[in-house]
Amino acid sequence: MGFTPDKRLQNDSILASTQHNIQIRLANDSRYFWLILVPAITHEGTDKAIHEIHDLPASVAANLWTLASHFSKALQAETKADKINIAAIGNVVSQLHLHIVARHHTDPLWPAPIWGQGTAIPLSPQERDKRLASVQSWLKTFSGKI
Amino acid sequence: MGFTPDKRLQNDSILASTQHNIQIRLANDSRYFWLILVPAITHEGTDKAIHEIHDLPASVAANLWTLASHFSKALQAETKADKINIAAIGNVVSQLHLHIVARHHTDPLWPAPIWGQGTAIPLSPQERDKRLASVQSWLKTFSGKI
Repeated sequence: MGFTPDKRLQNDSILASTQHNIQIRLANDSRYFWLILVPAITHEGTDKAIHEIHDLPASVAANLWTLASHFSKALQAETKADKINIAAIGNVVSQLHLHIVARHHTDPLWPAPIWGQGTAIPLSPQERDKRLASVQSWLKTFSGKI
Repeated sequence: MGFTPDKRLQNDSILASTQHNIQIRLANDSRYFWLILVPAITHEGTDKAIHEIHDLPASVAANLWTLASHFSKALQAETKADKINIAAIGNVVSQLHLHIVARHHTDPLWPAPIWGQGTAIPLSPQERDKRLASVQSWLKTFSGKI
């Protein structure tokens, strides 16, 4: 019995790392520098996916928020974002996943939320590798703080 | 020097309580049972509003997430929501505020996010008082856990 990421999350994002039982995924969308954190656990003793923040064990929830805060800060510094959007929605893919998205006044959907809007523009291999390298370098700076 | 809620937050929601320096506000919208948590602090030593989760002091951030998780669970139990949506967006009102919204498959915007969509339908005084009473009763069950 174990965790499997939803197929749509697997199709739309790239696994960058797993830290403290949380998958750090890079959305495959060059429109936004967009990370998706997915707790890699199920309801205890079952294969049943967790859907809600309040169903996480407290320690996993605490790590999720700490990671989210670190990535939020790092994303804003790297992209000079005007606003970071953080959200657990899950109306389409109910498996719990937390979006962290760098937004700019000049981006195509500003100020609307991005979910369910427009069409992803896949990352080029170069963009993908650059973003994945950024995530790895940020993780080094977080280590010991989580 | 001190915290003042953004005027649009004041206009669109009702202060239900303040706990651990976090305002708990009820969105004045009968379409959704929708709470808004607003850390009632500014950047230290200034009147400057906090915009990002990662700019909160760690203790306030921890309380914010703990409250959000408790309210998420309580909202889902009360409304039999199909999904709870939790989000810090702030592209329009940049002062940091965290939405917690009970969503149903049958609601008018499902599965789209609600922000920036449609028009709020103000609560009747009876609905408002009933929701505020629910929030108060939930807070009693949380006390000692935060």
